[in-house]
Amino acid sequence: MNLNEKGLLIVLSGPSGTGKGTVVNEILARSDQYSLSVSDTTRPPRPNEIDGIDYNFVSPDKFKELIENGELLEYTQYDGNYYGTPLKNIVNHLDDGINVILEIEVEGALNVKRLFPEAVLIFLIPPDCDTLESRLRMRGTNSEESIEMRLERAKEELNFYDRYDYVVINDDGLVDEAALAVISIAESEKHKTSFNKHIPEEFFTD
Amino acid sequence: MNLNEKGLLIVLSGPSGTGKGTVVNEILARSDQYSLSVSDTTRPPRPNEIDGIDYNFVSPDKFKELIENGELLEYTQYDGNYYGTPLKNIVNHLDDGINVILEIEVEGALNVKRLFPEAVLIFLIPPDCDTLESRLRMRGTNSEESIEMRLERAKEELNFYDRYDYVVINDDGLVDEAALAVISIAESEKHKTSFNKHIPEEFFTD
Repeated sequence: MNLNEKGLLIVLSGPSGTGKGTVVNEILARSDQYSLSVSDTTRPPRPNEIDGIDYNFVSPDKFKELIENGELLEYTQYDGNYYGTPLKNIVNHLDDGINVILEIEVEGALNVKRLFPEAVLIFLIPPDCDTLESRLRMRGTNSEESIEMRLERAKEELNFYDRYDYVVINDDGLVDEAALAVISIAESEKHKTSFNKHIPEEFFTD
Repeated sequence: MNLNEKGLLIVLSGPSGTGKGTVVNEILARSDQYSLSVSDTTRPPRPNEIDGIDYNFVSPDKFKELIENGELLEYTQYDGNYYGTPLKNIVNHLDDGINVILEIEVEGALNVKRLFPEAVLIFLIPPDCDTLESRLRMRGTNSEESIEMRLERAKEELNFYDRYDYVVINDDGLVDEAALAVISIAESEKHKTSFNKHIPEEFFTD
């Protein structure tokens, strides 16, 4: 008798500037049991962002086509651009026991939870609001107006905090701790009785 | 801004013969963040059991007194004996950030969950029914009748499986894995948003 060996759908979101990408890279570096689902977006690439790695950068017309063909698990609009989660690969990875990480905004996260109630929603957050602001400034690609907008948006996103299952604080210089916390949460979720409904029956037949 | 530093109330139960005590000892050996709540019982000590360590062995009259004085969080009767959870120390430990482990039978566990909905219920189980039976026989202190009764009882306890939050399999020779799973579950539970309701407000004021 063993625990359910399927992968988990892990949704990681949190305010823009929290460092979600850095935490995800740390998780991927530490374990081959995780895969990042690359989102489709109509947003232009930032410096250093690579097509197919950070996002699948697509035109608005192509995005519309993806929606119409039912190729997106969910999609949302944010800051004038579209972001979507491609269905392809997710189910296959889960069946192969690979945990799939979705790095998506709050609205998309709640949509995923509606479609996949077993999805694990993790809210990643900087240690305080000042840290968030300074991270947004350091990024150097945001206008003053965009920074203000993102801080305002962070406030709104925190209204949905209790819709998330877990919170992980991404403190400066402690990205390894944040990554280990996510890994620990996944390890723990694999022990949920709701994820292992086969146990009582198999206990007597194995 | 930090995570809630209070301790967790961890309820560990599972069929008699699962090896709950061995797993608890392994947890206590690995971390000083855990404390075992010693139960009161009217059952006579088994060989090697020490009063105040394995149980507080008390007379039926004394047990009745504990009930009347409200000194028990919960109590239950099993196999002709009484078992109870003393309230003393639990709340203090939790306030000090120490995780308190209760090693109690299913009925008591569900009573605790009613009284403390935040309690984390973990069902510990051998890898299969044959393993359970051979462990009960190896113990050498159980009559054939008592073994039959305990196996029957295990079947009944598994009816309450889905009332537990987590399941941990205690496989032969892998007690360290079972202990690490419990520790991982506790680590993860400390990240629950429901355990950290202070975060959204503190994010803007810290």
